[in-house]
This record gives sequence, structure tokens and C-alpha cells, in this order.
Amino acid sequence: MMNYRIVESVGEGVEEMMAGDHVLPIFTGECGDCRVCKRDGANLCERFRVDPMKKVMVTDGKTRFFTSKDNKPIYHFLNTSTFSEYTVIDSACVLKVDPLFPLEKISLLSCGVSTGVGAAWNVADIQPASTVAIFGLGAVGLAVAEGARARGASKIIGIDINPDKFQLGREAGISEFINPKESDKAVHERVMEITEGGVEYSFECAGSIEALREAFLSTNSGVGVTVMLGVHASPQLLPIHPMELFQGRSITASVFGGFKPKTQLPFFITQCLQGLLNLDLFISHQLPFHDINEAMQLLHQGKALRCLLHL
Amino acid sequence: MMNYRIVESVGEGVEEMMAGDHVLPIFTGECGDCRVCKRDGANLCERFRVDPMKKVMVTDGKTRFFTSKDNKPIYHFLNTSTFSEYTVIDSACVLKVDPLFPLEKISLLSCGVSTGVGAAWNVADIQPASTVAIFGLGAVGLAVAEGARARGASKIIGIDINPDKFQLGREAGISEFINPKESDKAVHERVMEITEGGVEYSFECAGSIEALREAFLSTNSGVGVTVMLGVHASPQLLPIHPMELFQGRSITASVFGGFKPKTQLPFFITQCLQGLLNLDLFISHQLPFHDINEAMQLLHQGKALRCLLHL
Ligand SMILES: [Zn+2]
Ligand SMILES: [Zn+2]
Repeated sequence: MMNYRIVESVGEGVEEMMAGDHVLPIFTGECGDCRVCKRDGANLCERFRVDPMKKVMVTDGKTRFFTSKDNKPIYHFLNTSTFSEYTVIDSACVLKVDPLFPLEKISLLSCGVSTGVGAAWNVADIQPASTVAIFGLGAVGLAVAEGARARGASKIIGIDINPDKFQLGREAGISEFINPKESDKAVHERVMEITEGGVEYSFECAGSIEALREAFLSTNSGVGVTVMLGVHASPQLLPIHPMELFQGRSITASVFGGFKPKTQLPFFITQCLQGLLNLDLFISHQLPFHDINEAMQLLHQGKALRCLLHL
Repeated sequence: MMNYRIVESVGEGVEEMMAGDHVLPIFTGECGDCRVCKRDGANLCERFRVDPMKKVMVTDGKTRFFTSKDNKPIYHFLNTSTFSEYTVIDSACVLKVDPLFPLEKISLLSCGVSTGVGAAWNVADIQPASTVAIFGLGAVGLAVAEGARARGASKIIGIDINPDKFQLGREAGISEFINPKESDKAVHERVMEITEGGVEYSFECAGSIEALREAFLSTNSGVGVTVMLGVHASPQLLPIHPMELFQGRSITASVFGGFKPKTQLPFFITQCLQGLLNLDLFISHQLPFHDINEAMQLLHQGKALRCLLHL
């Protein structure tokens, strides 16, 4: 993904940025004016929230890609269309950043890393000395670990069926690993043993409904919070019985880690550049842009976290 | 229920109360010492939390009812066993109150009223000028309404299939009513129309899985919070798809409205006695104790909110 940009030109009425500015495209926007934008703790802007089905510009319902393929128009994707050399984005989905900032590095913050760290900070609100279990150690799961470590978690448990993930996991602060394929008991039973009664926070970053239930059961009954980050097929129901919500465990989810992209990301970027998080960890590969399909393969096979594509 | 008591005698080591003290039995206790008790925002004490299956005293695993029926021992229920003239309760499940307080009235606060008001205040944290939908207008639902009104909600919508509830509902601050049996569209569609996009908070107090889904869908996508208060049969799953948690709606539940019974209830009692809530609303009937079965019938038939039983 080309998740950082330099502004080529701005449309009528855009005053907050100009040609030459360095910017991050943000897949879920912030108009600043709707009921959601005006509310603390909510970030799904009514006008510019992410919607995988949305294919056009919000303002006029049209596409800005004036080319076509096989005689069909090319549409937008996730507000930003970052798999292209040039794109047109609504200013509500663009964040201007200091031109001195390293664009390749902070571009990590316009998607997965913010999602994971924000889940740890804004959604779960991890407290110092608490315990954490993370199901799925891709970029989002490792970002949760970085966020938990920055908050002073006392124990971070990582769960993945791919043991290759454990090396990077260790660098992100994970101290205990469970491979469900090599465990003779349910993962939540192992977590209960390791933590004497369950973690305060669990995160589902694997997109597996079984992992979601294990994550829920891994938390301490009384104070446990589960944050769902993985994407699940829609026909299924949450694998939780209503009465289980009365047992002192809760489950929640959020998009983009609960960050309001335009108002809250600048401070987060500053924190990252000051070294609160180890961003270098996430750039596992660097490839020329024309190898984008190979990069997708690496991600799909679980061999890469984030591939930096350069022209 | 005899949900208020005068202490007859205290056991060894009990120092916080003595014979003659006025007390409220609390069905979910607070030891003050466990991981949950020491944590803000959690109230399911590890040792004395409510457990419908628990039949004995926590301290020694025995019953204190030294009588039997049909040669079977009589056990405890919900930590308090309030359907009896005399009972033995752990001090962690007893709150001492000022002898000048009207016991019959504040006894309402040791169960349903605190559950509803606490759900509005502690769990949903209703903000001024927001909109609320309440599914099921029994004592708990009306307590939610009282709590929402006290927080300055701008619109409170009540939903019940029994229109007899609407009169009391109006007294509790509900301004709009929906009877699902008389509506030609789904309740959440009606709520969307009335509120132009959904309520900020919805509460399920009916114990119906269909109502739970309607309550979830009645909230505003972006900021909506649903609080589950009704009791549901366990074999069912939550009627929510995982991906729906990414749409800016959340669902949660709590026991006893999230109040820590011993440390937080005293201030709540004071607020109630100062008139913040209309407690008289909830005492719909007064009956002699020996008519307890008739009182249960009235509750079951939806004709009574709370019956005050006197000896
Ligand atoms: Zn907005
Ligand atoms: Zn406790």
C-alpha cells in the first residue's frame, strides 16, 4: 500500500492543505461536524466512516479515476484507494503531517499499527501491571503487544498457530507463547493456569470465531475485557451466551483503535516518533512498487508483517 | 421479600455492626479485599458475588437454617435468603444504614431499583440531552427511566407489550411509548423514526432475545450502547453478528447496576432520600407477609412492581 502521499493539488474550498504537503490517507474519515465526530470516545464519522461497499466520493457520488479497465469504470476503495500511484481523496480522509517526519515510517500509523495500539489504549484502556492475551500475532496483534508494553503490562501472552511469529513477538514484549496446535488443553485453560485466574484483557486478532470464544474465556471473570479486532464471516453469531455477559466479562470492538483520525492521530504520531513504540519492527520487507503482488503473497502467507513499497 | 432487617446478633469477628443495627441484605457481596473489589468499575466480588447455584455460607460451606422440610435441609438463596423471617448473612452481604432512614423505602435499593438506575448511571453513563429506549417496563425498566431522567435525558422511549405499564412509565419520565403488538413495523424502525437515527442508549429489561436484538438495532450506529438487564435462557447465543460490533454499536451487561454494594450504595441511598429519584413509584402494593404467594402472583402477572410485605 502507498499509505503516504504528497499533495499534487487540492480542490475548491480545501484550505487546510496545499500542493506539496506531506499527508497520510486515512481509510476512516473525520468530518468534525457530525454527531459522532462531536462525541468523545467515538470515531465512526457519520459521513466519512469506512464502508467496504462504498465505491465513490462522498461529496458527489462519483469516481475520480478517469480511466477504465475492460470498458468498466475504476472505483474507489476504503475512501483512499492506496494501491495506485495517484488518487483523489476527500480532505476529511487526509491528515497533513510535518514534512520532517519520516513518511514511510509514520505511514504505518494510518492503519494496522494504530488499530492495534488504539485497541490497547483507547478501547481496552490497559492499566499498568495488568495481564494481556493476544490471539493472532500479525501486525495488528503485535501492535497490541507494543501498546500493552507501553502501558506497563506485567505479562503479555501471545497465541498463534504459526511459531515463526514468536521471534517478532518476543521483540514486541510478549513473554509467553501458546501454540494451540501443540497444546493438549484449550487455550483459555492454559491462560488461566499462567495467570492464576485469567487475564484482564484479551484481544482477538486472528479472525477466527473459535479464537474469539477462547479469548473471551481467557479473561478474568469479574474484570475481563475482550476486544475483537479480527474480521469474521457475517452469518455467524457472536459465540457468547447472553448470560455470560453477567459474569463480569465484556466484549467490544472498534475500528481504527478508536482513534479520531484527524484530531487524535497527530499526538499519537509524536509519541511514536519519540520512541514510545518500536515502529521499525513492523516493516518486515521492502519491495519495489511493481512487485506489489508478491508483497500481497507474503502478507497472505503470514511471512510478512508490512511491506514497504517504493517507486 | 423482606429486603430490610434489624440485626439480632453478630458472629465472632464482626465489628462493623451490632445487634439492633438497621441493615440491608445485599444479594451480591463485597469482601473489599479481592482483585475485583480493589478495582474501580467492577463489582462482582470474587468471594461473595451472586451465584444462583450457591446454597451455603461462603465461609464454611454449611447452611444456617437449622430446620428442615420433608427431612431435607433448607439451604440459602442468593446470599441473603430474604423470604424468611430470620436469616443468617455474611457481613460482606449486609449494609448497615442510618436508623433514621425509612427501611421499607430504601430496601428498594438493595435490588431492582439499583440495578436499573446503576445501569443508566454506572454502565451506560447516560449523558445530558441524550436519547434512551427501554424495552420492558417492569421495576427494573422504570428504574432505568428514573435514572435517565435524573441524568437529563432529552427523550425516553418505553417499549412494552402491556399498555397498562404506560401510566407508571409516564410518571417515571417516559414520553413516548411503543407497543410491539400494535406496531406495523419493527420496533427499531419506529425508534429510528422518532429519534432521527437511533438512540444513544438502549436497555433490554424484558428477558426476550428478540427484544435484545431490537434494542441493539435501535441505537445510533456510531455511538450506540445497549445494556442487557433481562435474564435469558442459556442455550441461545447473543443475537449479534461479530461484524456488527464494528459498526459503532456496543453491548454490555452488569449485575446490580455496577454498584459496589458496600462502598457505593450509601451515597446512592443519600441521593435517593434527597429526592433525586421517586422511590414511592415502585411500591405498588402493600400486603401482610402471609400473603407472600399472592404478592408473587401479582409480580408474575405484571400487575405489581414491588409489593411491600409487613408482618
Ligand atoms: Zn463526522
Ligand atoms: Zn471481593
